Formats: sequence, C-alpha cells, structure tokens
Amino acid sequence: MNIANSLKNIFASTNFNKLKFDPRRTLIKQAKVALNEGNLIVEFHDETEAYPSVWLRDNCTCPECFHNDSHSRAINWDKFDVGVSPISVDVNKDKLEIKWSDNHRSIFTEDWLRNRSFEGSKQAKYLEENYRPKKILWDGTEFTKILKTYSYREVMTKDEILYCFLKDLAIYGVVLLKDAPMDPSANSKLSQKIAFVRETHYGKEYVITSKPGTNNYAYLSSLLQQHTDLPYYEYNPGVVFLHYVVQTESEGGQNLLTDGFFVAEKMRREMKEHFELLSTVHVNWSDYGTEDFVKFCNIFRTPVISLDSFSEIASVRYSIPQRDSFFSVPLEKVTSWYHALKEFTKLLDKHCAKFKVESGNILVFDNTRLTHGRVQYNDTKGNQRYLVGNYMDWDEIYSKMRILKNEMQEKQQT
Amino acid sequence: MNIANSLKNIFASTNFNKLKFDPRRTLIKQAKVALNEGNLIVEFHDETEAYPSVWLRDNCTCPECFHNDSHSRAINWDKFDVGVSPISVDVNKDKLEIKWSDNHRSIFTEDWLRNRSFEGSKQAKYLEENYRPKKILWDGTEFTKILKTYSYREVMTKDEILYCFLKDLAIYGVVLLKDAPMDPSANSKLSQKIAFVRETHYGKEYVITSKPGTNNYAYLSSLLQQHTDLPYYEYNPGVVFLHYVVQTESEGGQNLLTDGFFVAEKMRREMKEHFELLSTVHVNWSDYGTEDFVKFCNIFRTPVISLDSFSEIASVRYSIPQRDSFFSVPLEKVTSWYHALKEFTKLLDKHCAKFKVESGNILVFDNTRLTHGRVQYNDTKGNQRYLVGNYMDWDEIYSKMRILKNEMQEKQQT
Repeated sequence: MNIANSLKNIFASTNFNKLKFDPRRTLIKQAKVALNEGNLIVEFHDETEAYPSVWLRDNCTCPECFHNDSHSRAINWDKFDVGVSPISVDVNKDKLEIKWSDNHRSIFTEDWLRNRSFEGSKQAKYLEENYRPKKILWDGTEFTKILKTYSYREVMTKDEILYCFLKDLAIYGVVLLKDAPMDPSANSKLSQKIAFVRETHYGKEYVITSKPGTNNYAYLSSLLQQHTDLPYYEYNPGVVFLHYVVQTESEGGQNLLTDGFFVAEKMRREMKEHFELLSTVHVNWSDYGTEDFVKFCNIFRTPVISLDSFSEIASVRYSIPQRDSFFSVPLEKVTSWYHALKEFTKLLDKHCAKFKVESGNILVFDNTRLTHGRVQYNDTKGNQRYLVGNYMDWDEIYSKMRILKNEMQEKQQT
Repeated sequence: MNIANSLKNIFASTNFNKLKFDPRRTLIKQAKVALNEGNLIVEFHDETEAYPSVWLRDNCTCPECFHNDSHSRAINWDKFDVGVSPISVDVNKDKLEIKWSDNHRSIFTEDWLRNRSFEGSKQAKYLEENYRPKKILWDGTEFTKILKTYSYREVMTKDEILYCFLKDLAIYGVVLLKDAPMDPSANSKLSQKIAFVRETHYGKEYVITSKPGTNNYAYLSSLLQQHTDLPYYEYNPGVVFLHYVVQTESEGGQNLLTDGFFVAEKMRREMKEHFELLSTVHVNWSDYGTEDFVKFCNIFRTPVISLDSFSEIASVRYSIPQRDSFFSVPLEKVTSWYHALKEFTKLLDKHCAKFKVESGNILVFDNTRLTHGRVQYNDTKGNQRYLVGNYMDWDEIYSKMRILKNEMQEKQQT
C-alpha cells in the first residue's frame, strides 16, 4: 500500500493542522492530523507515513509512560483513553511534539517513527530482519547445496560464526558441525553458549545406543523410520543436537532427513483434500514409560500439520511409533485420513536426503519442521554406535540471534 | 451418533461375513465386515461398534507390529497398505481374530476394542478422563467458591492429594497451598515432586522484591497491572508458582486474578467484532534486557487470544509492559484493535478477584489462562515483601496427573 496515495482522499476531506516548514531547521517536513481516520500523517523529506493517534499516545516514550530500565510501557491502562487525540502537533528539527487531549505531551524522534512504519513492505522487512528470518524450503536432491557446515571450535569462539550457524539453522532447518571434541558434553557446552538446554522427561541429555528392551523405539538398531521427536509434547522441542561420538562402521546407519514444511507445502498445492485432513484431524500423540525410575504419560492432541492463524505451517509432527491407538476422530474421517497420511509418508520418503554423519560431528536440526530417521545398522564389539542428544527451544535461539546481530551492528558502528 | 442405527443402511446394502454366535462361549456376539465403508462392525452383547479396517490393521497388537517395552507401534509404514481389508473374521470368546489381505493375522480383545470406541460421546468421555479435564470458567465474584485450598505438606506426602491439587489447577486455573515451609526452595521441591521446573531467561527461579532500577516491571512496588507472564515466549510458561515467603503488612499488595478464558468467552458472545480482532491481530510481545549478566531479546508474535484449530481458546496473553511499540499490523486495523483491547482490559477489571495471599502460602495458577496483578504496596525496614516464583509447563503436569490417576486405580483394583 502506498500510504501517500491512499491518504489523498483523507487530506481532501479533512481539516488538519498544517505546520510551517522551514527546510533549514527540520528533517520532518510537516505533520498533519487526519482526524477522521484517527491517524497522524507525517511528511518526511522523502516520504509520507501515517501513524494511528492512539498508538502514538500508547507508545509515548517519556519517563512517566515508559520505564527505560526494563524497556517497558508504564502507562496505567485502566485509565488510558483509547479515544485520545492530538490537540496540536509541533515539528522541531527531527522531533515531533504532540499535545494530547488528555493533557499529556509526547515527543517522538524521526528515527523512532521511521523504524515503526505502518507501511506493509517496511513491516515485512522489519520482521524478517528482527523477528525471524524467512525459511527456505528444500527438496532432498538439494541437500548437499543447502547443508552448511561449520567448525565446532569456531562456533564456540567467534560470535559472528555462531550467528551465521544459528541463522542457517533457522533458514534451512539443518546445519552440520564438524570436529566437535569427543567429550560427550560437547552438546551441552554448545547449548550453554547459546542459552540453556530444554529439559524433557528424558532428561537434559540422552544417550542413543542400541539397547534391546528399551523404553524408546529410537534405542534400537533396526530401521528407525522418519519421525519428529516428542510429538506428544504440546511444547515439542524446537531443535535437536545429535553428537555422533561414535558412528557405526557397519554398512548401514545412514541418516534420513526430510524438510516436512517442503512436503506439507507440496501437499497443500497438489493434494488439497489430503492437506485439509492432515492439518485439521487431531492425532493423539503419546508416550508412556519410565525414565530413570520416573514414570511419564504424555498425550498431546494436534494435527500432523499445525497451522498458525495466517494458515502458515507452524509445525509438523510425524511419528509412527508415538501415534496412539486411541484415535479420537469421527469414524467417517478415519479411512480418508489414513490415505492422506500414507501420501504424506510417501512424500517424506521421496523428498528425503540420505547421508551419513561422521564420528565427531554434530547434526543440528529443527524438530518442529524436519523429519529424521536412520537406516538399520549393526554394532560390533569394537564399534558401538554412540550418540549424545539434547534439545533447545526456538525462543532461546531466536533471542540469541537478535543479541548477536545487535552486538555485531554495534561493533560495526564503533 | 448412534452407530447401530446409522449403519442399518450399510448392512442392508452390503455383503458381510455373518459369524455364528454361541452365547455360552463368547462375549462378542458377532463381527460383520461392512466393506463398502471400510469399517468392521462388531456386535457386543449390549451394543454395536464400528471400527475402520485400516485403523485395526495399523493398531495390530502382535509383537511384530507393536513393541511392548516402549508401548510403540513397530509397523514399517513405508510398506504399509492403507487399502488393507479383512479376509475373514473369527470370534473366540472375548477375542476377535482377523485375517488380513496382506496375509497378517491380528487378535483384538473385547476390552481393547471397547476402550477405543469411535462413538463421539465415548471418545469425549475418554478424552475428559484421560487427556485433560474440562475447564470450569469463573467470574471474580465466584472466586471464594472455586478457590480450593490444600496443605503443602499433604500435597508433598499424599499422592491422592497431589492428584486433586493438580486436577483443580487444571479445572479452575488456580489453587492455594497453605502452610508451606519458610524455606525459599519450597516451590522447587514441589516442582520436583511433580516433574521438573521450566527454565526461562529469568532462570529456574526468581525472587520478587521491590528493586528500583530493575530489568523487569514486576520488580517494583507500584501498581502491577494485570498481565500474563512471559507472553513473548512462543512456549509461554504453563503454570506460575508464587511462594509468599514474606507478604507485605502495608495496606496494599492485594492480589488481582482474572480468568482470561471467562473474559474471552464473554467477549466472543457479546462483542463479536472485538473478539475477532483480539483473536486474529498479531501483537509483537517482547522483552529486552540482561539477567545474571546474560542478555536476552525475546519477541513472539501472536494474538491476545490464541485459538486452536477447533476455534477453542488455547491461550490468553495480556501485558501492557511487554507489548512492543513495533506493531506489525495493517494501519486500518490499529485503532479498532485498540478499542477491542480497551474493552478486554475493562472486562479483566470487572471480572477480577481481589484477595491477599498470606505469608507462607503458595499461589499456583495457569499462566496460559489467568491474568494476575497486584495493588501498590510499601516496604518498611521491618517488613520487606519477598516472593519466590518459578514455572512448570502443562505437558509435565498433565503427565503427572495421568500417572497418579493410573496408580490410584491400580491400588483400588488390588
């Protein structure tokens, strides 16, 4: 939306305060109050922006309205008047001073205002740069191109490298770390470098070796079908760190990895009815058992494909073992849902990347997006596959990315 | 839906295997395969149930298809035929034996089948008893009636009491624990009794006292407007435990608590347009700062009212301080959204419970549902308000409830 154009009609029909403009002493040309829409129109030297009056008043940056130490709004909303309007607007160089109908005065700088544009494309740019980078979805055939490899040591010691590693993880959903120390705590040290480990009923860390009679199907050496971890958690772990302390030397043990978002979007385009079923029919994901003598009994009901309120894909859950036999779904939907799941399974297989992580490397991937699996392998006396895994959540990872980015920008400016 | 009635037409038009019924040796009367709908119809002595064939095959309980140690499905879905159908069905006492078109044989017991009914009301009953209890929403005027009080010592020592405490927490969203030890670790001991603490960038535990120059607005003694904690976390903490080690003796300091789901449902009924805005317009919730020398920069975008895919309310987020001045929303929605938020604020105030937790008590409440606040108070030299808080997530709490319930049922049966 071009605000300048779309507001021509408002200007034509509205009385507003025109402020005198002296190009020698101001960067903001003028501010006009288009009261019929409740917006304040600000003409900068190169463009025009519109800001809702109530939003400006709500975001007054004076010490009474904004608590600087905690970066928090301090306005008492029990008394806040959402019908508030500007009585006068003064432009002073790069500052806008507003006198409000509630007798308050606010001052906004040009930078502050420009950063908070309500123009759609600028908001999108702000979000992509400051909120979350845009994901790039991939087919298994593109895997060698999209897989970025970093040195564990560099990630642990150089903030710029750590930032790039996390950003690639957010964009592609997978990154490989080479040359991690054989120390089984390499994962947890990395997590602490970023923020902290996400605990689950399997603890803060888990060892994956072949354990017959296990409480978890992943602890067997037979084929591990593709799945997402812990789908029975409402708060399903965001990122998996798998440290291959010892990889199998047997012929098997290849990793399988598919971009579940790629597959889900393909299904949305090409198999609309299947997509509809997989994104609306709630599955009872579950896990019952005992870990370290503590029982757990997790159930979470949600579709294979979770959509957010923009109908964007928020999360993919897929697990044959952890799909409960209790399927609390209307009878008439069951068979068609199974056909949809079968097609999804075929797509996961078709668009899968197959590779083999080497001993000493750490495979890091987005557990809310990618499915992972493993081909059957065989342990021998001299070679027992030994992995250490742990989780982190995206809240912490995105937070760290923003901090690192801000610090790098500050460095550049000094 | 009455399955027996609705299937009359299917029976009328379908060829199925009628099995001989001998009332002396069987509990299942007969099994009929209504192949046109892909369902197997089972007549028990008192009622008729329908089970989708593909679901039965998928949930075969034989050791080849189901891994008992991990309670997990072991079927290789790459090879699974969703078009599978029964070739023959035999009834043997309380067991059903099916021979499948893929040459497999499955045996299902009557109990197993009955528990997994596809009849809507039975599924609803199963979910309420085994998944999550139904929430009972409340107005502030009902608070003294709905607030259940438990003894900390009893909750810590008697599993039946712990279960009732957690169930009331799930149903009403708030419970009070009396007579906790003055030990500041009372909260974390309770969390460990249930499962484990939820960590955030504020650590595993936080102390709330009046701290001028704080990094968090909650650490001031002035009015703390109602809010939910950490709305800027995608995984917003499920439950808050607030241990009042020392309550203020000043006149102020009263607790404010409102059932956000009650308010949201009221708004859905009475102010449809406001509800629409608050449940679709994404707010940038945020928190920037430093805790224990570690920086954080959390942002999460989601509406005040989050709906699940059934349009049920999943979570309420509300916080004046943690609502970012960056508001990435189309200009034309802003002013009407502010009016909706104001009405929501008024409702939170109108339906609020006001009370004062005594020293030594622990207030426990659902942070995804209730808003909480506090009236201004004054510390004196001899009386400094001192609270210890921590979080747990609902995944762990529901899991513990199921375990406790199962154990109690097992005890009753022995």
